[in-house]
Amino acid sequence: MNRGHLVVIGGHEDRKHDKTILSRFVELAGGIDKTIVVITAASKIATEMWEVYDKAFADLGVIRREHVHLESREDANNPELARKVEEASGIFMTGGDQKRLLAILGGTEVDTAMHTAFKERGACVGGTSAGASAMSGHMLAEGSNVLQPEKNAVNLGAGFGFIPRVVIDQHFSERHRLARLLAVVAQNPYLQGVGIDEDTALVIERGVGIEVLGQGAVTIVDGRTMISNVCDVADRDTPELIDVRLHLLPSGTRYALQENDEDNTALPAPLIDFLKNVTKRNPVS
Amino acid sequence: MNRGHLVVIGGHEDRKHDKTILSRFVELAGGIDKTIVVITAASKIATEMWEVYDKAFADLGVIRREHVHLESREDANNPELARKVEEASGIFMTGGDQKRLLAILGGTEVDTAMHTAFKERGACVGGTSAGASAMSGHMLAEGSNVLQPEKNAVNLGAGFGFIPRVVIDQHFSERHRLARLLAVVAQNPYLQGVGIDEDTALVIERGVGIEVLGQGAVTIVDGRTMISNVCDVADRDTPELIDVRLHLLPSGTRYALQENDEDNTALPAPLIDFLKNVTKRNPVS
Repeated sequence: MNRGHLVVIGGHEDRKHDKTILSRFVELAGGIDKTIVVITAASKIATEMWEVYDKAFADLGVIRREHVHLESREDANNPELARKVEEASGIFMTGGDQKRLLAILGGTEVDTAMHTAFKERGACVGGTSAGASAMSGHMLAEGSNVLQPEKNAVNLGAGFGFIPRVVIDQHFSERHRLARLLAVVAQNPYLQGVGIDEDTALVIERGVGIEVLGQGAVTIVDGRTMISNVCDVADRDTPELIDVRLHLLPSGTRYALQENDEDNTALPAPLIDFLKNVTKRNPVS
Repeated sequence: MNRGHLVVIGGHEDRKHDKTILSRFVELAGGIDKTIVVITAASKIATEMWEVYDKAFADLGVIRREHVHLESREDANNPELARKVEEASGIFMTGGDQKRLLAILGGTEVDTAMHTAFKERGACVGGTSAGASAMSGHMLAEGSNVLQPEKNAVNLGAGFGFIPRVVIDQHFSERHRLARLLAVVAQNPYLQGVGIDEDTALVIERGVGIEVLGQGAVTIVDGRTMISNVCDVADRDTPELIDVRLHLLPSGTRYALQENDEDNTALPAPLIDFLKNVTKRNPVS
């Protein structure tokens, strides 16, 4: 049985040459004879976005490709479009602006359909750039490109909640976003920060484990044991941060969780909570 | 008694307006009636560098300012220049190229004179940019500006050894150098990485404590408990890094070590080893 996969991509995944990540997405969706739908609502140039992915998935041999073109919440509550999404084996969210994506889809029929497809039918849900940020419960909505972690540099919003207790940033190394991810974690130590590089994907298999693939790495920032004075410093000041844990998972990294904790001795202990959390099988919301 | 201070500056310290850092350097050297010498050997434009600092220190009211102009190892073994350095209360090393600085000064009379002045007379030794990197024992000699921490991206050299067991990088946030500092620490977990932002100084008082001042922050990267496969990956590949500890000390941070460990309970425990190490009173080499 297919347990459902999430493919969380840091933007600029290759669409013309080796297509490593999109190819894995197709494979995890069940192969080229399954239906893949593309949600372009994050983008204001939805038609162009669709054309790019339509061609990429066609080049990979996928026969049934559909554009779920949503320009309003009315569209996102259209039962026919929701049914398309619910029946798809692969659901792909393009880049653009994650605030726009959530403003159009959040709490709609299409949103529910995505969760149902993922949780009940084991569909593969992928997102790149804004589409990736939107996949967590607490979503990095917007943030200044700060040099140092500044208090209140980043605004969070409500994302789709496929992955709880994390906040996802993309184009991570290329746009030098560690400082803003630290800014989020400093103020929200409940969340682990996940920074995904361009042309790089964090693949999560529900109940099983994770894998990193592509050209870059995934950076995890864990502030749970951190000591900080963030609540005492002024707006836009840099707080003191002591003992933030940083993990770097390069492409090729794979971890599989065992059912029993005593069998997880081969896994790096500082990662076990993260792995349990992101692979958790949550009830259908 | 003056115990000796080190002023480790991340480059681009203000020299024209508030001069916060240079002003503290003068104060720690004993004030405006003490002698300050400027070592420009890191730079190929030594005379211009001297003029900049001559003016800045004059503006701060320092009367006795001297240029220690070293263009060769012969110059650096000149007993008269060495005597000038040994008798100075403030010794300032400008930016340029730390490899050039060490190639000219390493192991010479002027080098010995700096250590004697610091350790026996409590002189204040400052360095900015290349001059800052040169102050540690293991010196970040050169490194590519990598996006991810890559194996062998950075070369180390032998620095002046004022601060053991650390490696110092400068222009840290501005030039996005965390990846290369992680690359050093991944391969040299014996060293703690210290990244200093522009117009920011890590001030170390021997046997006492540290302070951060200026516009930015000091980032410390501690890989001692890290798990990594760096010895197994290929040249220029990105290693897996699990559980690197990161500390961010903004401007205004101060820590003073107490003589007895049981009195250090107010200090953040993850920083105590670092504080002990950088403030250690080493014998004169």
